[in-house]
Amino acid sequence: MKNIITVSREFGSGGRSIAKEVAKRMGYEYVDVEMIERIAQTSGLEPEIKENADELSRRKNLFEFAFAGREGKADSMENYLWNRQREMILDFAEKGNCVIVGRCADYILRDYENALHVFIHADMEYRAQRIIRLYGETDQTPEKRLSDKDKMRKANYKYHTDRDWGVAQNYDLTLNSGKLGLEQCVDIIISLATTE
Amino acid sequence: MKNIITVSREFGSGGRSIAKEVAKRMGYEYVDVEMIERIAQTSGLEPEIKENADELSRRKNLFEFAFAGREGKADSMENYLWNRQREMILDFAEKGNCVIVGRCADYILRDYENALHVFIHADMEYRAQRIIRLYGETDQTPEKRLSDKDKMRKANYKYHTDRDWGVAQNYDLTLNSGKLGLEQCVDIIISLATTE
Repeated sequence: MKNIITVSREFGSGGRSIAKEVAKRMGYEYVDVEMIERIAQTSGLEPEIKENADELSRRKNLFEFAFAGREGKADSMENYLWNRQREMILDFAEKGNCVIVGRCADYILRDYENALHVFIHADMEYRAQRIIRLYGETDQTPEKRLSDKDKMRKANYKYHTDRDWGVAQNYDLTLNSGKLGLEQCVDIIISLATTE
Repeated sequence: MKNIITVSREFGSGGRSIAKEVAKRMGYEYVDVEMIERIAQTSGLEPEIKENADELSRRKNLFEFAFAGREGKADSMENYLWNRQREMILDFAEKGNCVIVGRCADYILRDYENALHVFIHADMEYRAQRIIRLYGETDQTPEKRLSDKDKMRKANYKYHTDRDWGVAQNYDLTLNSGKLGLEQCVDIIISLATTE
């Protein structure tokens, strides 16, 4: 029985939808990176961090800010948020019965015997069609949007874990959602999580 | 329905046993790298290749020979065998209803819609205990034996496919056999292969 499920995923692969559906069907709490970021940003920011908040809000997202500079305030801001998020993930894991999406949770909880670590990916064509359907067109090609996001996740994962993102050995299970279909991915994850 | 299953695996992960059991339970032909090597070596070797055969047989295995030199005769020998093995894998795939272990079959059959590509891995401790139980102790530590084999498979895969071995995106499904157990891996593969 695995009562903590971490889901990492390529942008556009449907990993988030799969995770939500798994949480719903198992009656588990669904925890995702935006939620963790929001709580970390709004609660108890130290004064020296707080002065970066305006700059942070001007940027499109946290990672863009974090990657703008690895030194000085930006660096301490990133490390502060990382530590807060890490603590929050450990708190969720302590309670159990949760599905956690993104944010290197597979690494943070790598020694938890009751955790199942999943990675979802799909080929470029499938993901390109999916993000256009879900988020609409932009000035950039869907391929460019996908590779930018993937690059950011890869760099972020490497920075915090010193491991390579998407390598099979980091996960208990990886699935090609484009080939297998979202519904089947949900079924497999539930089946593996509920086996004694 | 997937009637071709390719299984790549880390040494000692039980990938071969899983593949054999899947083939047995599905009534599929089981094809592995030793079989392919044997046929390729004994049938229709070209004269200029044949003179390397003595050297080949003195070496512990084909890869050791292949990696001894990437130029001249060794190189053409390797490429000749690679092409023969590639053709044989394509022949097996054409007939269908088979489980093919190793030898970059996932790459060779990457565009086959009716193929399910699986990678099996496990942590070092699990694999070390398993190879000692199966193959006994040697002068080398099990960790050294494992990392040598992994390194060879990685280099061989890279050379022939220009892709990185063990990266989730190359496979439809990857499984941690040490954590999930061999029996459960067999069940999941069969379940995915038999779904319409």
